[in-house]
Amino acid sequence: MHFFSDNSTPVCPEVMAAIAAADQADHGYDGDRWSARLNGAFSDLFGMQVHAMWIATGTAANSIALACLCPPYGGIMCHDEAHVVVDECGAPSFYTHGASLMALPGEGAKLSPGTVVERLKGIRPDVHQVPARAISITQASEYGLVYTPDEVAALGMVAQEHGLGFHMDGARFANAVAFLGCHPGDVTWRAGVDILSFGCVKNGGMIGEALVFFGDQAQARAAEGARWRKRSGHLFSKGRYLAAQLLAMVEGDLWLRNARAANSAAQALAGGAAGRLLHPVEANELFIRLTAQEAAQLRAQGFDFYDWGDGAARLVTNWSHDAASVQPLADALAALPA
Amino acid sequence: MHFFSDNSTPVCPEVMAAIAAADQADHGYDGDRWSARLNGAFSDLFGMQVHAMWIATGTAANSIALACLCPPYGGIMCHDEAHVVVDECGAPSFYTHGASLMALPGEGAKLSPGTVVERLKGIRPDVHQVPARAISITQASEYGLVYTPDEVAALGMVAQEHGLGFHMDGARFANAVAFLGCHPGDVTWRAGVDILSFGCVKNGGMIGEALVFFGDQAQARAAEGARWRKRSGHLFSKGRYLAAQLLAMVEGDLWLRNARAANSAAQALAGGAAGRLLHPVEANELFIRLTAQEAAQLRAQGFDFYDWGDGAARLVTNWSHDAASVQPLADALAALPA
Amino acid sequence: MHFFSDNSTPVCPEVMAAIAAADQADHGYDGDRWSARLNGAFSDLFGMQVHAMWIATGTAANSIALACLCPPYGGIMCHDEAHVVVDECGAPSFYTHGASLMALPGEGAKLSPGTVVERLKGIRPDVHQVPARAISITQASEYGLVYTPDEVAALGMVAQEHGLGFHMDGARFANAVAFLGCHPGDVTWRAGVDILSFGCVKNGGMIGEALVFFGDQAQARAAEGARWRKRSGHLFSKGRYLAAQLLAMVEGDLWLRNARAANSAAQALAGGAAGRLLHPVEANELFIRLTAQEAAQLRAQGFDFYDWGDGAARLVTNWSHDAASVQPLADALAALPA
Amino acid sequence: MHFFSDNSTPVCPEVMAAIAAADQADHGYDGDRWSARLNGAFSDLFGMQVHAMWIATGTAANSIALACLCPPYGGIMCHDEAHVVVDECGAPSFYTHGASLMALPGEGAKLSPGTVVERLKGIRPDVHQVPARAISITQASEYGLVYTPDEVAALGMVAQEHGLGFHMDGARFANAVAFLGCHPGDVTWRAGVDILSFGCVKNGGMIGEALVFFGDQAQARAAEGARWRKRSGHLFSKGRYLAAQLLAMVEGDLWLRNARAANSAAQALAGGAAGRLLHPVEANELFIRLTAQEAAQLRAQGFDFYDWGDGAARLVTNWSHDAASVQPLADALAALPA
Repeated sequence: MHFFSDNSTPVCPEVMAAIAAADQADHGYDGDRWSARLNGAFSDLFGMQVHAMWIATGTAANSIALACLCPPYGGIMCHDEAHVVVDECGAPSFYTHGASLMALPGEGAKLSPGTVVERLKGIRPDVHQVPARAISITQASEYGLVYTPDEVAALGMVAQEHGLGFHMDGARFANAVAFLGCHPGDVTWRAGVDILSFGCVKNGGMIGEALVFFGDQAQARAAEGARWRKRSGHLFSKGRYLAAQLLAMVEGDLWLRNARAANSAAQALAGGAAGRLLHPVEANELFIRLTAQEAAQLRAQGFDFYDWGDGAARLVTNWSHDAASVQPLADALAALPA
Repeated sequence: MHFFSDNSTPVCPEVMAAIAAADQADHGYDGDRWSARLNGAFSDLFGMQVHAMWIATGTAANSIALACLCPPYGGIMCHDEAHVVVDECGAPSFYTHGASLMALPGEGAKLSPGTVVERLKGIRPDVHQVPARAISITQASEYGLVYTPDEVAALGMVAQEHGLGFHMDGARFANAVAFLGCHPGDVTWRAGVDILSFGCVKNGGMIGEALVFFGDQAQARAAEGARWRKRSGHLFSKGRYLAAQLLAMVEGDLWLRNARAANSAAQALAGGAAGRLLHPVEANELFIRLTAQEAAQLRAQGFDFYDWGDGAARLVTNWSHDAASVQPLADALAALPA
Repeated sequence: MHFFSDNSTPVCPEVMAAIAAADQADHGYDGDRWSARLNGAFSDLFGMQVHAMWIATGTAANSIALACLCPPYGGIMCHDEAHVVVDECGAPSFYTHGASLMALPGEGAKLSPGTVVERLKGIRPDVHQVPARAISITQASEYGLVYTPDEVAALGMVAQEHGLGFHMDGARFANAVAFLGCHPGDVTWRAGVDILSFGCVKNGGMIGEALVFFGDQAQARAAEGARWRKRSGHLFSKGRYLAAQLLAMVEGDLWLRNARAANSAAQALAGGAAGRLLHPVEANELFIRLTAQEAAQLRAQGFDFYDWGDGAARLVTNWSHDAASVQPLADALAALPA
Repeated sequence: MHFFSDNSTPVCPEVMAAIAAADQADHGYDGDRWSARLNGAFSDLFGMQVHAMWIATGTAANSIALACLCPPYGGIMCHDEAHVVVDECGAPSFYTHGASLMALPGEGAKLSPGTVVERLKGIRPDVHQVPARAISITQASEYGLVYTPDEVAALGMVAQEHGLGFHMDGARFANAVAFLGCHPGDVTWRAGVDILSFGCVKNGGMIGEALVFFGDQAQARAAEGARWRKRSGHLFSKGRYLAAQLLAMVEGDLWLRNARAANSAAQALAGGAAGRLLHPVEANELFIRLTAQEAAQLRAQGFDFYDWGDGAARLVTNWSHDAASVQPLADALAALPA
């Protein structure tokens, strides 16, 4: 049983079925019947009129969102362990034509309003310095922590006061909402988020995430985003196969069901790993203290996962798990000699 | 029955089966078992050691190829009706950071060595002018014409003599090879091509094309290409679903069978459209004279297709057609009053 | 006596004196007393409130202007022999992050409204094609021809109707205005020009041109331009030495006096070269038929200039010439055996 | 008497004389007699064959150097208070097309080999992360500290071992060499530096710095740099006025004499400011503790300078100073009540 990454898991059956159902002749690119339903489906989900489009990957979604919010000479406030900083080979710089990632510290890879405001104060308003133009946060964070509606709103307030765009990398947005039990609007548009990268692949999809644009400028930014999607080679010829996956996720509650399954599995593991947790477990990732010897013991029992530096490991649960199915690992963790 | 585009067609069954077979747990990105087989499969296909990778779309494939061959201050010789010029929203400029597309004329959207050489002569070798650094051609061309091995080799010779990289946009490469009946190496590496965008989606795939790197610099350029693929947000989390499609195409002869079916359908239509052809029919596209009234007549009989400016239409056949299945349209064309 | 280029000539004495007068302690960058006077001086010159800034070179001025008018995914309509196309090593693509130069034909390197409108019609309004966003013309043109106020206004009307920014490369703007005898506003803001590259170096300056922003968006675009100026490394530490040159030119009528001198010299030469002219002589450049043997004869008499392809030559007059001083060359041209 | 910045000072007489002497007709751009002497003059200065070119500003010099050393997907190790990070509006990102500035801490704005090596260890060698490709240091540092030959060489060794290019921002290189009393080669090519931004404007010049390329790849990189210089609009039409300034500086010892004068003035001030120094004084900048009240007292006596945050000030001396001429300020500093 592996806990490498939610990327390592098969596609969930409902998504596979949706792909098969979309295997029909239709117009190319995003001119098909499935793509045409995206705005409506995501507007229903978020309880307001939004603009939504499929997009190949999380990196592309994040980068195009940031290109819509920040000019080349601007800066983007984000956590210094954010995926956009650490794991995208500089894609945001590519798409924004050289905007600066202004990396800030913060517990559990979460950004705090105070840190952002402090950094803003240090920027002289002259042409020599890069002006901040956007904030980007990850929900759930790179360490599996979740921003509450109030925490997002506090950052949204800072964004509004300083004229900054506000982007949310929601590669694990479903897990965050499942944890919070709130309405998806509570941690997005009601809290000031302008553009959301809505993750699907880690949550059971095959290929394709969504970009969701909120607010007054949603339409204009979505039009800009559509140009970037083509210009960057992300406008698939047969977009219906991506649209169908997204619709399968959000026209019902599959996105939440899958996330709840992964989250409950993570909680089960957290129970077994009490005393080892490097971060609270809120979504579907566990970061635990684990010696090389302990890791070897677990692997010998058939569990696999990635080491996370010296003496630590990361365990990621996914849609195909649940509390019961991962209990053997929870037990094995609990059984490790202290 | 529609002839809009080869993009409008369902995925062929063998590819669908390959996707289903790849629906297993494995490592993310391109760390899976299917991606690992690409170099071998394409080396077998081309009869030499190549480097191959999956890539989302033809636009991305073309752009990354050009970014590997041309610096930002360089120029790319291509036809002025080439897809890279006309239909990619400037993607090659985005990926190359502003390289110039040096658009040249040519019958049937084909580039000739003489035109290229003439243009090269007009460039002063000083820093004020943009130096040519690459040639890009489309096989089959945007009007469905095919470069023979000798024609490609003549351009390859020009490329070599002038130190230019040589890229081939092979969105319909299979159709070209099927028409020529040659070995795929004859119109690529044996003729001096450095990088090929190998098309699959128009030929029955769902999502994903291949970039194939030939020659001494193949490995270095593929490594560069792999960085661009990530940096542009094209490194899919679950790459196995793309790799599996490509393998289904090229580990057997599916790529050629599909192309032959489409080509034979095009020949059948060409028979019916004799006297109307704007270009010779070599691959799977027909460009024909057709008045608005004639178009309406055909549509009334259940055939659909795109108009191509005033008094003309484009008909595209695909893998799901064959000579027999399109005979009704051939007959309808032949039956139009002269 | 040489007629290579107006770049080859010394600085005119008034400009040298202005540089010496500015050799004082003051604040760095553009915080000095001279830079502070630019907006006022250029507003007086143009008869309206403009924003003006010094800028290193004509290439930088053109490129920054275009970056203020055209997004990376947009296109710029210009003549296919325009300096921005032919002689700037792709600088506009660098500054605009890959915008397309849409090169059009036209007699004497002049763009006509009809050609622009025709090209606009050919662009499909979808994300696959690059939308035009700006027009750029050169006044005087690369062949020394001058756009009349009506001609500029006709292009300005096209720009306005299609939502395009309108840039004028005025490397030889002074020569054009001197030829027309009009108010400088007549061929700029009154005719719809948004941004002007106002040339000084070819007209007797040492280092530095001006960017002049007109219209409602002048202030916002100038602020954007100021960022680009810094971001591209063009914000000189001691900007007063550039500002002083521009003020010397435009606070009096030096810019026109210098241009008139050059123009009158060109007219004198045109008189001698009657029958040889490849283009009408309107500003300070002559393009003439001249065999290699004839060129050699002239050079033997002490006149030098650049050949302009086979059987032709370019003669450029400058501020230090006048009709009398170039008469010897006029006579020598007239004396060549027919 | 002001101590704002070395940018605020007039041009030194020898440079003014050199400009006047270059006020002759010659070929444009860098085709003139002065530009032709740069390689030779800088080769003599550095005691090895180098390639040298004039360049408008320090920002342009740094950015073009980095563009020659680092690909768009690469990273540049530098101090987090480096000019390239803090004061260039993101110019290095513009020129490198989005390379990442990897900002590191270090006492006195100096980078240490240990910090660099530690950061290098944290980069996974996969396509998800940005690989380091260059180191950039400032000599003297942003706080006026000087790297010794051994310190530079230690970083040069790290660069060599890890395949990184090595750039030195020498805006105040003359002051550093004057302080060290070493040969200029000792802190550049002998220590592994690949490209030097050689500052002139702060040291008495009007407009123009030099880029100096060392080592095996000097010629190729200089050719690349020459393209960037044109492509970025920095190839001045009348380059002889820049070349003449550089030659005036380095064909004799003016560059060192000017720097020594500034340095000795700084030492004189340091004597008066004992007990207030925030950093050791090695070049021509002092950072001192100074209350608002004390600052007001000094200003009342006719001395001016910039505040440097709360309770601190920066004093910059320049070529027109010497120990004697700044003694009044030294005395005034010493006389401030403790």
